[in-house]
Amino acid sequence: MSEHGGAQLPMAMLLVFGTAKIMGEIFERLHLPNIVGEILAGVVLGASVLNWVEPKQIAEFADLGVMFLLFRVGLEVKASDLIKVGRVASIVALLGVLVPFGMGYAIYIYTGSNQIEALFVGAAMVATSVGITAQVLASKGLLNVRASRIILAAAVIDDILGLIVLAVVSSMAKGEVDILQLTTTAGLSIGFTIFMLSVGTKTMERVLPGIDKRLRGGESQFSLAMILLFALAVFATYAGVAAIIGAFLAGVALAESVSHRVHDLAQGVTELLVPFFLAGIGLALDISVLKDPRTLTIAAVITVAAIVSKFVGCGLGAMSLGWPDARRIGAGMVPRGEVGMVVAQIGAGLGIVSKATYGVVVLMAVMTTVVAPVLLTLTFRSLAQMPDDPDETPIRIE
Amino acid sequence: MSEHGGAQLPMAMLLVFGTAKIMGEIFERLHLPNIVGEILAGVVLGASVLNWVEPKQIAEFADLGVMFLLFRVGLEVKASDLIKVGRVASIVALLGVLVPFGMGYAIYIYTGSNQIEALFVGAAMVATSVGITAQVLASKGLLNVRASRIILAAAVIDDILGLIVLAVVSSMAKGEVDILQLTTTAGLSIGFTIFMLSVGTKTMERVLPGIDKRLRGGESQFSLAMILLFALAVFATYAGVAAIIGAFLAGVALAESVSHRVHDLAQGVTELLVPFFLAGIGLALDISVLKDPRTLTIAAVITVAAIVSKFVGCGLGAMSLGWPDARRIGAGMVPRGEVGMVVAQIGAGLGIVSKATYGVVVLMAVMTTVVAPVLLTLTFRSLAQMPDDPDETPIRIE
Repeated sequence: MSEHGGAQLPMAMLLVFGTAKIMGEIFERLHLPNIVGEILAGVVLGASVLNWVEPKQIAEFADLGVMFLLFRVGLEVKASDLIKVGRVASIVALLGVLVPFGMGYAIYIYTGSNQIEALFVGAAMVATSVGITAQVLASKGLLNVRASRIILAAAVIDDILGLIVLAVVSSMAKGEVDILQLTTTAGLSIGFTIFMLSVGTKTMERVLPGIDKRLRGGESQFSLAMILLFALAVFATYAGVAAIIGAFLAGVALAESVSHRVHDLAQGVTELLVPFFLAGIGLALDISVLKDPRTLTIAAVITVAAIVSKFVGCGLGAMSLGWPDARRIGAGMVPRGEVGMVVAQIGAGLGIVSKATYGVVVLMAVMTTVVAPVLLTLTFRSLAQMPDDPDETPIRIE
Repeated sequence: MSEHGGAQLPMAMLLVFGTAKIMGEIFERLHLPNIVGEILAGVVLGASVLNWVEPKQIAEFADLGVMFLLFRVGLEVKASDLIKVGRVASIVALLGVLVPFGMGYAIYIYTGSNQIEALFVGAAMVATSVGITAQVLASKGLLNVRASRIILAAAVIDDILGLIVLAVVSSMAKGEVDILQLTTTAGLSIGFTIFMLSVGTKTMERVLPGIDKRLRGGESQFSLAMILLFALAVFATYAGVAAIIGAFLAGVALAESVSHRVHDLAQGVTELLVPFFLAGIGLALDISVLKDPRTLTIAAVITVAAIVSKFVGCGLGAMSLGWPDARRIGAGMVPRGEVGMVVAQIGAGLGIVSKATYGVVVLMAVMTTVVAPVLLTLTFRSLAQMPDDPDETPIRIE
């Protein structure tokens, strides 16, 4: 039947996937990171240029795509490796929150904005979008070098800190700071993460083979993995952190118990959906709000501040490892991607963040995301030929 | 950020995927087809029982799921094998359209319905949902026996015939039958299918390796396959047939040129999304409209007629192959699934199909889909141990 399903879904899939892959290929040939091409494909298809695709048409595929990306990355990471780098990662995350928050707040106060809006801009500059960095590192087979592990661990901690900052700022906006509720939220999210990292992997190693053996359906291990992925994504949001953190922890918990077949099948979903995540970031950009020269100037300043503050803050936190790794970690924490936009949306929903400021935050989020792959390529160049842990087979997620 | 993405998407994924897999497992243990369990999972989650999930929450995943299912099936089928069985498949499809259409129309006229509504019910009984049958046959590794090939070829022809029937009935409802437009539509859809089957495979074999070699991105063959899949799905809807027919033809065109890696990656997407397609059929059922005893009686009669008419019509068309294959082909064409519902929706949109009649059609569509796997298991049992073509490695899609 011609009306069955209709052309709308396959057309959106074709436009976004096709354009992302073609622009990725062009960037690859120009010796630029292809991930930047895929993000810019979204800018081209979105409101800024062609206006052919609306963000909400592909929002579910984008959300699922970044969940699978983090799940796949988790499958390559051992919980013990993350715990080992926990101390350094905590310092990296903490300085990576304080420096950008302070700079964003200060700049907005300087422009004459009110206190609360400035706090929201600061909060929007806090959250790292680990998806972008994970994609770049995975595509280079560099997930298992020390700097990458610290970035991943710091991104998890960063998400928890970002949650707390957002909760504080939101309750200040509403004029009531409920310390008990804030403590509960923080405790829940930290508890969930520590529980999954410490108990999760061992439980899976003990439990999974037994359940798997008793199931009769085809590809039952993959089905179990998917159920764990979705369950932890749900639990994570209930605990207050992002669904992708749950997806990542599901991957880590399964890393040592799941067959290669599950990796391949999950990889198929990742390959299909990640371009929607990347292009989805670009789709959100609407350059028309930046026509006003004053807004454009603020956007430029905020964007530069966002890059510098994360790079310097996180780099400082990792100085104990020496300059090369500090640079790598600083670069890896730069992208804000979709997370910064969500904070700005909440502020807009509360009537605190103006349309112009929202446009500024979106530009900052997109630009940090475009710059990060370039910084990563430069800072990780010397490692690309010689991974520091030859036992680990590098994988390609791209 | 807790609000990033939110719990809604992972929760819907968890509920639908998890329930489908658990009920599939239970049915497997009861020696019933697990696909029936997955469809009934949708009934349980939907308006009829728990009302936890709305059909539109997972509609895109369901639509994409059945596209990937048909693509995966297409990858296992040679165009030449489909063309070889074309004559028998045409007779199967033609009788499989005429007998159900006539029975549906006659029953509704007998109940005192008006001419046009009866025509729509007839049209809704025409279209075969090949996804269900393909899933059952693939999971048994029986895609390459003669009966399966005829079912697949007949389903493609059936879709074209269904398109023509729907076009005629719709234009009768609007009071104007435009012969020129009908001929164009028919010609386009037939031309598209024949072109893809005859030229498509050879073109891909010649063109794909060259393009693939020149691309620099990772998994570039998979990306090319996806672009072809979406492009043909779009073309198919423009030519008037279903997007899944385009997806199937994309698979067939690539069957002999694509690497095993592409099969595995596409399989991952299929594994994830097919439960959404299956549960989505069950989700559409709302038994509350069937409370009226008269409606329930009509629904029961129509459901029995739908099963018998397809089984007999298609079976008759295949009698030249002997009774065992005729039975198999008859059983394989029984499910109406989502396609019958779409016809009824169009009728409802034109104000012709009443709410009660819509409920009748949905029950018919769901029940034929639940019965078909049982019929298939029975009729194909003797083949399950000995595929007639030992050169072909049976694959499992499940």
